[in-house]
Amino acid sequence: MKITILTICPEQFNDFLNTPLISRNSEKGLLEIEICDIRDYAPGSFRKVDDSPYGGGAGMIMRCQPVLDALADKRTADSYVIVLSPQGRRYDQKEAHRLSQMKHLIFICGHYEGMDARIYDHVDELISIGDYILCGGEMPAMIITESVMRLVDGSMKKESVLEESFEEDLLEYPQYTRPADYKGQKVPEVLLSGDHEAIRKWRHEEAVKLTEKMRPDLLEKKRRKNVQTVKQNKTGAQ
Amino acid sequence: MKITILTICPEQFNDFLNTPLISRNSEKGLLEIEICDIRDYAPGSFRKVDDSPYGGGAGMIMRCQPVLDALADKRTADSYVIVLSPQGRRYDQKEAHRLSQMKHLIFICGHYEGMDARIYDHVDELISIGDYILCGGEMPAMIITESVMRLVDGSMKKESVLEESFEEDLLEYPQYTRPADYKGQKVPEVLLSGDHEAIRKWRHEEAVKLTEKMRPDLLEKKRRKNVQTVKQNKTGAQ
Repeated sequence: MKITILTICPEQFNDFLNTPLISRNSEKGLLEIEICDIRDYAPGSFRKVDDSPYGGGAGMIMRCQPVLDALADKRTADSYVIVLSPQGRRYDQKEAHRLSQMKHLIFICGHYEGMDARIYDHVDELISIGDYILCGGEMPAMIITESVMRLVDGSMKKESVLEESFEEDLLEYPQYTRPADYKGQKVPEVLLSGDHEAIRKWRHEEAVKLTEKMRPDLLEKKRRKNVQTVKQNKTGAQ
Repeated sequence: MKITILTICPEQFNDFLNTPLISRNSEKGLLEIEICDIRDYAPGSFRKVDDSPYGGGAGMIMRCQPVLDALADKRTADSYVIVLSPQGRRYDQKEAHRLSQMKHLIFICGHYEGMDARIYDHVDELISIGDYILCGGEMPAMIITESVMRLVDGSMKKESVLEESFEEDLLEYPQYTRPADYKGQKVPEVLLSGDHEAIRKWRHEEAVKLTEKMRPDLLEKKRRKNVQTVKQNKTGAQ
């Protein structure tokens, strides 16, 4: 998979490129990652990438020309182009699976008060990693890159990925490691029993309990899905 | 405000500490940020911070001792302690406002398959930045730090913060900057009119339209809130 990130802050990606997942997958040939400086496409010695908004208001807006010229330069027939923006579709683990199937992802990182809305007509979609405001799209681009790369074949152990939160619309069950008694806090006895079936059952019940407490919306989603599956099965049988 | 980040990957924070928002606020004295290596609290030359899970399963679990010893060392009476975890309460702009009122935030970054659940009994809450899986809590800690720091008094221009997405349960209206005609793509005429009232009205309508299309759940939330306010006002008048 190839990932191209268009940004006005390329210097923010050094640590990220050195994280074990990204550097290992680059070495293995699973990932080709390219950080592209939008300012290289802005003319003049000031390399001006922003300007004030039409109609007034605080802050600066990213201009069409440098962004669209950078995009035109990096885009190929295989590219899927995403703008990171709080106005976008909400990103989740299902979206991560979808994006992990793409050949070439291009992320455009917004900044300042936003970007000229005409840029959006040239991209495939806007994605938001959550309902909060950041300085720019740089961290969201890293978040999506990391979550997608974890799912690419050959990147992680399959079991690790399957046992995680959200894969079954459930949060993950509580985990424990040695010692069995830490200053009076004890590990649940069933986990020490060696009874694999009892452990499996306990973990599933704890996952449901935790999801009910913390994220009842996920259970609701799961129920709706089950109802749909039952309906589809019934239709199929007629 | 003071922020302490407990992590096994302190090297991932260098670029972040150099971002304009964080370095500027540190210089201004608005932020004191401290990156603490959990491995410094793990005994022996291997500085082992993880072990395999009780009850079996893939991956490694972060051990109680190094994490809780690091926490005990950094915690004061003013500390509010957060574990970054997909099992947590979902983070949003309202939560950012809440956390921006704290004196001292401590973030504990999870890693591997998770951490020993007994650690959770020693913290104030678990927070999740979204329903997707990452390698660790490092980027989530940066995301929350950045979004919180933008809201701290003296950090940003007030108008900039008020005009943003989510502050009114609406996405932000589309923005445009020069030129008025970019290769045939034109800026909406009203923005060139100089009629401030018309511009305000157009922007509000566009924000509602965009929110309806992309995030109907936000409008639903807004409607429920309005109904509650009306009910409260009625009760107050009786």
